[in-house]
Amino acid sequence: MSFSRFCASLLSVALMFSAAPSARAAHEAHTEPKIQVGIVLFDGVQIIDFSGPYEVFGAAGFGVTTLSVDGKPVTTAMGLKVTPDLAFAAAPAFDVLLVPGGDVGDASKDPRILEFVRARTKGAKAVLSVCTGAAIAAASGVLDGLKATTFKPYLDKFAKDFPKVNVVRDVRWVDNGTVITAAGLASGIDGALHVVARLRGVEVARSTAVRLEYDWKPEGGFVRSLLADRYLPNLNDVRWPADAKFEDRYAYGDRDQWRARILVRAATKPKDLLALIAARMEQAPGWKKDAAGAVWHAQQEGRSVRLAFTTEGDGADGKGYLLDVALDAQ
Amino acid sequence: MSFSRFCASLLSVALMFSAAPSARAAHEAHTEPKIQVGIVLFDGVQIIDFSGPYEVFGAAGFGVTTLSVDGKPVTTAMGLKVTPDLAFAAAPAFDVLLVPGGDVGDASKDPRILEFVRARTKGAKAVLSVCTGAAIAAASGVLDGLKATTFKPYLDKFAKDFPKVNVVRDVRWVDNGTVITAAGLASGIDGALHVVARLRGVEVARSTAVRLEYDWKPEGGFVRSLLADRYLPNLNDVRWPADAKFEDRYAYGDRDQWRARILVRAATKPKDLLALIAARMEQAPGWKKDAAGAVWHAQQEGRSVRLAFTTEGDGADGKGYLLDVALDAQ
Repeated sequence: MSFSRFCASLLSVALMFSAAPSARAAHEAHTEPKIQVGIVLFDGVQIIDFSGPYEVFGAAGFGVTTLSVDGKPVTTAMGLKVTPDLAFAAAPAFDVLLVPGGDVGDASKDPRILEFVRARTKGAKAVLSVCTGAAIAAASGVLDGLKATTFKPYLDKFAKDFPKVNVVRDVRWVDNGTVITAAGLASGIDGALHVVARLRGVEVARSTAVRLEYDWKPEGGFVRSLLADRYLPNLNDVRWPADAKFEDRYAYGDRDQWRARILVRAATKPKDLLALIAARMEQAPGWKKDAAGAVWHAQQEGRSVRLAFTTEGDGADGKGYLLDVALDAQ
Repeated sequence: MSFSRFCASLLSVALMFSAAPSARAAHEAHTEPKIQVGIVLFDGVQIIDFSGPYEVFGAAGFGVTTLSVDGKPVTTAMGLKVTPDLAFAAAPAFDVLLVPGGDVGDASKDPRILEFVRARTKGAKAVLSVCTGAAIAAASGVLDGLKATTFKPYLDKFAKDFPKVNVVRDVRWVDNGTVITAAGLASGIDGALHVVARLRGVEVARSTAVRLEYDWKPEGGFVRSLLADRYLPNLNDVRWPADAKFEDRYAYGDRDQWRARILVRAATKPKDLLALIAARMEQAPGWKKDAAGAVWHAQQEGRSVRLAFTTEGDGADGKGYLLDVALDAQ
């Protein structure tokens, strides 16, 4: 039994017509020339940043070629080893250039990568960066004067590092005409679908998403930076105890609430830790303490926001105690 | 500048506490032992089937090891070359086994893969198949008597090929306790998040999804097989003209509507093609022709369904004509 036709076929319509002799060759002979995509790979690249778009472009019938500076294998951020198709020097012309992110500390300083991105942006129909790939695009100069977004936790630093870029915080991707930047990680799938829509029409992009069993929202969809942790006050300058170790247990939410739990290992007792936080909260602009205790209220963007800090356990067993953060916006 | 801490850190809470000396080591010292995941790779594997879950497990702090029969590089369904970490023979114990899909025609008949999946399912905390990876799991016997789902276009053949499996069609993933099967392609991301929820709690899974900027729905989410093309009649036995070539242009929809466009190249004129379809529709159980022409109505699952076939162009220029299919359920 062969499943290759399932994977090779763009759409499921041909299956409806599967008695037709040519149904298996459903998208072999496109009238339009095949769109060619080049994917820039480098050590530290985040897997989903390039693999999500790779899958999208492939399913849309685009040709995909992976590239690295010298054509040698790269090790991704999580350790997976990938052998690119070609070195930059051997790369043919591309319609679309994909610049993924990950650990881009080296890549965003590598003049060979920056020069390649700069050169190939000229004449490209679309250049898509994903996640911290925006730092590579920005460092190459192709985002100067343009709108761009990136991975949520990197937004502030990105804006500081690249003052010529107009950083946008409330979108899943932003399109300047040719250069498109997607937010973090999985957002690359959406950005790639948007590129398909731009080059082949929104119907083909929708078809591709359906094929990938992906719930694409052509108008935007899930925006990480709009979740309710945006209402949290800046607690960076709390004077944490020198011996304190914090270990994230979880942090999640939606646009209306945020829940976080942190394991704390410190000689400082829970109530003293809460007192440290309270002292900082007293200074936080707009926040007012509730009579009930470690609960604060603020008005933000016309919403009533409640923030509570609580602890669980006393750490007497040396295993630490839990600090819970609960934010609700109404 | 280094971005590695963004990628290495599970959650964003630590950033809130970024002045804390140990914040960068936020999840180095988990109290619980690290969960280990083994990913089975093979020639023809679909990129997103393994890369989506790889990213999820990595972001959740799990250890991930890629494997192939002999440890040699594999070529994915779309041509990407990946070098696995280990051969099956060198694989340590795993808590979680991932069985991705793709072109599994060979893999689902390879006794070394089937034996590995069978052996490693014993004692595993979770085994997750993605897309047509369900065929590998089923061929290995580990789905006998259990519920399973797969890639939408493969559901019917899967049920036929593996009569001992209870095929489920209306879910994004189905969990039997240990063995979990996800639907097609991107569904693997959701299936992997479900595994994280099972092993570390739903809060950690939600945190991981937020981290990946992925809109996870713990209760299910997007289900490809529930889209409105399920109401389409079976047109497999239409006697298509022998010279007809069909080329999918698009096919997409939601639970209430379906739109498909097919480029037709055939000597048969558009009106004669519509007549062929009409002749078949006359036989389709439950469908009634509208007085208006090539429009049919049916009642399905308590819904009123309308199906229209129209054509555009006459193909006189040799470039074919378009056949449009529009289905609406109310």
